[in-house]
Amino acid sequence: MRKIERIFIDMDYVICDNLERFQEWHERDYGHRIDDADLVGKKYRDAVPPPHREAVTGYPFLQGFHDELPLRPGGAEVVRDLHERYDVFIASAAMEFPLSLIDKKKWMATYLPFIPWQNIIFCGSKDILSGDLLIDDNAYNLDAFDGEGLLFEAHHNIGVEGYKRVVDWAAVGERLL
Amino acid sequence: MRKIERIFIDMDYVICDNLERFQEWHERDYGHRIDDADLVGKKYRDAVPPPHREAVTGYPFLQGFHDELPLRPGGAEVVRDLHERYDVFIASAAMEFPLSLIDKKKWMATYLPFIPWQNIIFCGSKDILSGDLLIDDNAYNLDAFDGEGLLFEAHHNIGVEGYKRVVDWAAVGERLL
Repeated sequence: MRKIERIFIDMDYVICDNLERFQEWHERDYGHRIDDADLVGKKYRDAVPPPHREAVTGYPFLQGFHDELPLRPGGAEVVRDLHERYDVFIASAAMEFPLSLIDKKKWMATYLPFIPWQNIIFCGSKDILSGDLLIDDNAYNLDAFDGEGLLFEAHHNIGVEGYKRVVDWAAVGERLL
Repeated sequence: MRKIERIFIDMDYVICDNLERFQEWHERDYGHRIDDADLVGKKYRDAVPPPHREAVTGYPFLQGFHDELPLRPGGAEVVRDLHERYDVFIASAAMEFPLSLIDKKKWMATYLPFIPWQNIIFCGSKDILSGDLLIDDNAYNLDAFDGEGLLFEAHHNIGVEGYKRVVDWAAVGERLL
């Protein structure tokens, strides 16, 4: 196992609870909330009833979707502790959603104020990152990354095999702190 | 010499003409335009008369500074040709200026529409980039980068020694195309 010095941490579904925001907005607009059981192993969009799908798929492109996203439990505390021990970067594939850029930067200033701007990365593909460990909910990002990967559990990746999995921030802390 | 496949290209002072924007705003606000000769080997802020310095140093933090920045001559054409032959990423240390994020993304959609979102990176430190070549006007970015570097000439780096220098986009084309 390589020595872990530099860690990249994804935002969406890892530090932030995007699922909860999808549910809130979906309920607000269509009075519909998807059962957790129906989301297992699926992207949110694939669990949305077809008449709502186009609008709901577009939510992350709207201003405000990424603003004040709820934290995944323990995220801020464990990231702070990791930051004290490792060279921690937050790396979000934010370029897909141009209006998210300011919201995400603001979110980090609010919830992770100890992370300096030098350690924030908005990118597209994660194969450009040079470091030791990536914590991400998307297996394709771990595949692209040159170092080790931890698959952070999110509803959509349940059932995905072949990766070291962490079920929550407590599990990340146990492994790395 | 390593085989060049992936190239990172900086924005400010490399594809974009930030100097011209500083001069425009400085002239607009204080009726003052610094002679080119007085900028050789200096950051713009260090050439600004002290009474204007604080305001002028703050320009890049203002909305609009990075909006529709002029192109450096030949930049768009050479970047397009590089993109056809190499794996080209635009990598800007934009995190220092949070309000620049949207402007910079918009600028790229306007002037470099052939660069997909997957190939745009806003970062802080450039030592996180994994690739073969970085074209940048700041020697400290080339020092941080693990691959080869080309120092793109800008007024502030004239006189900086110890780097492979390219004086303009035509020189980049001659070297890489």
